[in-house]
Parts: sequence; structure tokens; C-alpha cells
Amino acid sequence: MSSQLNKKIGDDVEVWGRVYGVRALGGVNFLILQDRDGLVQIVFDKNFKDVKVGSWVKIEGKVKEEKRAPGGVEIQGKKVEVISAPEEDLPFDLSKKELLVNLNTLLDHRPLTIRHEKVRAIFKIYATLIAAYSEAMRELGFIEIKTPKILGAASEGGANFFTINYFGKKAFLAQSPQFYKQLCVGAFERVFELAPVFRAEKHFTTRHINEYVSLDAEMGFIKDHEDVMDVLTEALRFIFKKIKEENKKELEIFEAEVPEVPKKIPRYKLAEIKKLIKEKYDYEVPAETDIDPKGESLAGQYAKEENASDFVFVTHYPRAMRPFYTMPDDKNPEETKGFDLLFRGMELVTGSQRIHDYKMLVASIKRIGAKPEDFSFYLEAFKYGMPPHGGWGMGSERLIQQLLGLPTVKEAVLFPRDVKRLEP
Amino acid sequence: MSSQLNKKIGDDVEVWGRVYGVRALGGVNFLILQDRDGLVQIVFDKNFKDVKVGSWVKIEGKVKEEKRAPGGVEIQGKKVEVISAPEEDLPFDLSKKELLVNLNTLLDHRPLTIRHEKVRAIFKIYATLIAAYSEAMRELGFIEIKTPKILGAASEGGANFFTINYFGKKAFLAQSPQFYKQLCVGAFERVFELAPVFRAEKHFTTRHINEYVSLDAEMGFIKDHEDVMDVLTEALRFIFKKIKEENKKELEIFEAEVPEVPKKIPRYKLAEIKKLIKEKYDYEVPAETDIDPKGESLAGQYAKEENASDFVFVTHYPRAMRPFYTMPDDKNPEETKGFDLLFRGMELVTGSQRIHDYKMLVASIKRIGAKPEDFSFYLEAFKYGMPPHGGWGMGSERLIQQLLGLPTVKEAVLFPRDVKRLEP
Repeated sequence: MSSQLNKKIGDDVEVWGRVYGVRALGGVNFLILQDRDGLVQIVFDKNFKDVKVGSWVKIEGKVKEEKRAPGGVEIQGKKVEVISAPEEDLPFDLSKKELLVNLNTLLDHRPLTIRHEKVRAIFKIYATLIAAYSEAMRELGFIEIKTPKILGAASEGGANFFTINYFGKKAFLAQSPQFYKQLCVGAFERVFELAPVFRAEKHFTTRHINEYVSLDAEMGFIKDHEDVMDVLTEALRFIFKKIKEENKKELEIFEAEVPEVPKKIPRYKLAEIKKLIKEKYDYEVPAETDIDPKGESLAGQYAKEENASDFVFVTHYPRAMRPFYTMPDDKNPEETKGFDLLFRGMELVTGSQRIHDYKMLVASIKRIGAKPEDFSFYLEAFKYGMPPHGGWGMGSERLIQQLLGLPTVKEAVLFPRDVKRLEP
Repeated sequence: MSSQLNKKIGDDVEVWGRVYGVRALGGVNFLILQDRDGLVQIVFDKNFKDVKVGSWVKIEGKVKEEKRAPGGVEIQGKKVEVISAPEEDLPFDLSKKELLVNLNTLLDHRPLTIRHEKVRAIFKIYATLIAAYSEAMRELGFIEIKTPKILGAASEGGANFFTINYFGKKAFLAQSPQFYKQLCVGAFERVFELAPVFRAEKHFTTRHINEYVSLDAEMGFIKDHEDVMDVLTEALRFIFKKIKEENKKELEIFEAEVPEVPKKIPRYKLAEIKKLIKEKYDYEVPAETDIDPKGESLAGQYAKEENASDFVFVTHYPRAMRPFYTMPDDKNPEETKGFDLLFRGMELVTGSQRIHDYKMLVASIKRIGAKPEDFSFYLEAFKYGMPPHGGWGMGSERLIQQLLGLPTVKEAVLFPRDVKRLEP
């Protein structure tokens, strides 16, 4: 396709795609074709009958070098065959560099707006991200699992479950693969999953959606959460390297800079980073939160200024703010071996060492006022022994949002779901 | 880990995993360790304190060549550290070659039964399958997409949707990514997805589950469904080659033979294969079905006997039996350019060319008695032009079931969901 044309100079080729634009200039007609790779310019001296912008066409012609054309080549057109033509003119101009529509229009007309070059670029990078995540995890010795999204009980905690009518019974949509990936550590030691999760949270923010693709991992035989952060760092180094290599053109469209992932991402305890933020920026994180978005943003700024890092691990969140399965710290059991990874000041990953000891886990369930018998299948694995383990969940769309500087995470989703949006 | 030990003969190593079995023989103690790769034998002359089977341990020792041991090596053990011990004895023996439990026990105790070597083998092959599918599709120029699983309308047809309470509104769980992957053809030409789908079908068979992972693809600029079958064939050749290369040991456990995928898989029209089945096996497919399971099984047998193929494409299903978006045949509009792929006599893939012409699609919606306005976002893409396209959906778990000869597809799912099973 078009990205390969520079290897075919002088050849007769057939190309196909969508007519992006047509213009006449000094007796010569230019047709810009959008194919799956990008844009290519086709020049017609004659044999040109006007084609409607947006039509799907097949074009025959000869490849020529042309420094001024996109990709350094153009096609001397010989024949245009219209395969499918629009019934109406498009409601907006897809050939402008910027698709100047508001967020609702962008999302309401998603079947069309995803045809815009800049919008396409987002999802080409997204595709690299998910392929690179799988490749990184396999390289690191993890095996890919697929766990159920329909659950019989909402025992993981929180009130954020969507409910399903399951043959007359009440069931729940998974808000994470947490229990299942832990169970799989007991069989495979290192597992990862790449799957949708569902959160019934009534958020109206630029960083929340109600269905997203979570990049999960869980690993056994760790010393503590530090090992988990080390492996996550390796995975991130791999992913960003891949994106940098494979999406040059797409990154340029956004003028996006791929972050350097330091060999050792700076790590601060939550209490410590709060103090540093207070000292440096005179900002007091509200006492009723572990850390609020403004605090996260300043923590990101701090790491950038003091450590020259786009990433920062914040560790030792209070036990009361973390799920029951989070391992408490040895020295201060009111703190946990839990962490968040902030990327340019936004939470990207949440992870921790988990409790693997059966008796300790039962006590932790009782501690939050829940009944161990509601966790029977989960606890079964621990009763018969589990290795020390930990893992993470990473928001794939948020990574893209932060990488490209998108104003909202919704722009990083093909067909996003929010409190008010169920279509398209 | 253990699969690498044959490269470390003479070295001091540390290994970890689960104690699979312990036995004493002539003053020597043997400990079989299961790690993420497989089994390894550790021999102790002394320094051996008995460890409970099922315990998670770290072991230090020296690697020795030993032809009779699994993998051709064993470890001369020096030290055992017990990291986590079972609270009770396991309810069944995980160290037997066959895990002799019935299906309910197998699935009820999934957190433990997935630790059995033979069960683990299934999911190691499964992991290869999904990685190979992604790799194959990328090689073939497809880009990976993630489409929503929560839908605002059940417009794709059928009564097989689970309903969700979505912030007080009724929503539906996707029974396929059909509409969305078609829309994406309009932007990316070739797309694939690997994601769960949900079917509210009250089946009690060995080949149905209510949540499964579908391997989907959709491609533009095709001549007809034959092009789709060609690309699918290439993908399958790649996948089975990978499984054969990467899962030798696991395939041996099942004595499973990886099928040869012919360059050209035999193709029969439905009406034709029914006639051939009648002639050869004297079996009449019931008139009220397109083809019943027994008919499929005989079609598979026919292809094996007459074409020496484990696969057979059956094409030209009647229009009345296929969804409205299926392209009718030019010559006989009561038939479609739709196909099924049977693998060893079971339906594995369903696909077709789709209708891409706006007016024809609107007419096809009306033909089934539905309202085009209920399909507004789907139709928007077609109104503004779509290239000829087609695609498929493949059941990932069924492929594994047929490859390994599992008695039910549920054994190919880590945590299956059926009409009665919502846990674990």
C-alpha cells in the first residue's frame, strides 16, 4: 500500500482507498487518496473525470519520485474506477489538517470522524501499544490469560458494578480481573491480560470512562512491591521504544514526544511526596483524599523538575484507601505495599503486593466488615497455598491520552462509553 | 526456569515453584517441583526435611545431567525453603497423569485444577493461539481494534442479548463486534479484534458457552467472500504452524495432532454438500435447519475422506438463515456469499461478504421487518460510502477443543460461564 510506494518507483501499480481531496491546478488534476497507510498524491493530465470527495476508488497508474508530495512519491494516474460513492456530502471536511468539530460531534459521528488522518493516527498508535504490551509481557515470561467478564458476585468490593440479568439471576460486569489473575498465579506464576473492564462510576471528568481496556499483570515469587515496579518499568521501556519506532509519522501529527523511561523510575512514599509538594508548591492535598488530581499533577511536576522523569511511583498508600487484598507494610501496617504510577502527572497504573497468606487474607476480609464465605472460591486457592505475588492494572487509553496530550481520554477510545453515551 | 536447565549443567541454581510430589527410594529423597515451565526432579541425599505436597518452595542445588528425569536433567538439592504451605491436604491428587474428576468438580475447583499439568497445557496452547492470531493478522496488514462491549441497542438482531442496568437505562452486552468492525473498515481497511462476546442462549451442549473470546476480522476491497476465505486460510496456516512449533510438549500430553491446513481448503456450497452427504452416508439434513450438528460432522468426514482435509468451507447459506447484512449471491439472491468453516466436523468460523451499498442495506433491513432508523449510526458509514468488505468471527475456545479433542468446550476456558455456572 501507499507506504511501500517509494520502493516501486517506475512501476505500474493499482492503489485503492478513499478520495481525500481533489483539486485542479494549471490544467493538471490532483487527487489525494487515503489508503490504510496514509495519503498519496495522484496526478492526472487527462483521463480525469471528476470524482466526489469521499468516494471509494481503485486507481491505476505509474509511481514517480516527487519530493514535494507526501512520502516523496506520487502516482501518474491512468484510470480511476469508482467503487462506492457517498449519497450525500460529508457533514464536515475530513481533509483539513485539524478536524474542527466539538467533542460531541466528534463522538456522535464516530463512523465518519475515525476516517480523519489525525483521528486515525491515535488508533494506529493504540494498536502498537496493545501489541507491544503483549510482546513485552511474553518476553518477560508471562502467559496471556482470558478471564470472565460476567461475575456471579461483586465481592471484589466497591459499589461500582453494573448489574446484568443472567437468565433471571443477578450478575455483575467485571470491574477488573483481580481475583482471577491472582488465582492464575497459582497455576502459571506469571500472567497478563488485555481486556475490557467496566466501572459504573458517575464520573464527568476528562479522565474517566465507564468501559476501558485494562492492561493487567500478576506475578509470583516476588520479594515485595518493588519487584512489581521493576518489571512494570521494563515493560514500559519496551512499549515506548516500540511506539517510537513504529509510529514516527503519527507522533509527528501530534508533535508528541515519546518519554524516556528511566532505568529506575523515581519512587516516593505518599506521605513523603505530599510533604515535598507542600514545601515546593505550597499546596496542601485535602485530608479526606489519599491524593487528589491536583496533588498528582504536582507530584508529576516535582518528578519532572527534580528527577527529570515523566514518570513517578507513589507508594505506601494508606490501608484504608486500598482494597483488602493489598499487603500491609511490615514496619507500619497502616500503610500498604501498594503503588500508583503517575505519567506526566496522571495516574496510569495501580498496583501492589497482595496478601498471599490464607489466615492473613481472611483477617483482612473481616477487617473491612465482609464475610469470608462470600469469597469462598477466591480463598480456596490461598487455603491450599499461594506464593508471594503482586501485579498491576494499567489504563491503555490513558496512556495514549497522556502520550499525545489529548484533552480527554474519550478521544483515545474508538467508541467511548460514558454516563450519557451508549452510542454509537 | 526449568525449561532452561539443560543449558546450565554443572551450575548452582535457585528454582522455585510448587511441590508436585515427594518420594523416598533407597535412602534417597526425590522432590518433583512444578514451576511455570513444567516439572523438574530434585534429588536429596541429606539435608532433606519432609515438605508437604502443594507447598510453594525455593530450592538451591546443582544441575546434573540425568537421562531418566523429565527434561534430561535433575537438580542435586542443597536447601529447601518453604514459602507457603497448604492449610489442608488437596481434595484431589494433582500429581496423577490424569486428573480423575468429573466435569463439575473440575470446574467448581478451578482455582486448584488449573494447577494440574494437563490442564495447564490447555492454557499454554491457548496463549499461543491468541498471540499467533494477533501476529498473523498484523502480518496480513490488519490493525487491532477494541470496540465497546456495552451497547445502547440490540439492533444486530436475535434475542440472545444479556441486558444491563446502565445508570438506570437498559443496555446490552455485545454478542459480536459486527457493526463496529465494519465501521472501522471505513477508516482502516483491515481490522481485527480479540475480545469477549456474550450470548444469552439457553444451550446445554458440549460446544456452547455464554461468554467466549471471539477472534474477529473485517477487510475492505474484496472481490467477494472467496477473498475472505483466502485470508482466513493464511491466518490459520500461520496459527497452527506456531502452535506446532511452540507447544510440542503440551501437544504430546494430549497426543494431539496439529492439522495440515491445505493451501486451498475445500469449498462446497451448502446445497451441494448436503447432497453429497445424502449420497455417501445416506443422511438427510433436517429440512428446518440449514445444517445440523450431525450434518456438519458428516461434512467434516466427507472432506477428510475425499479431500484429505481437516477443514472444509461450506458456502452459500440461505439468506433467511443469515443476518441482514450478509451479501446475497448475484446468481441466486436467495443464497448468500456467506460461509462457515468446519474444523474436524464442527463449526469454527462464520463469515461472509457484507452488503456495502447503502440503498441495498436499507432494503435488507426493511426485508427482515426492522426499521432503518434503529440502525442510524451503523447506516451513517454506508450513506457516506463504504468499500466492498467482508470478514469473520472465530471461536477461540472451540479451536482448542477440536485441536485437543476435549469432550467439552468448557474445558478450554479458564473460568467458563454457562446457563447454570457463574462461579468461580
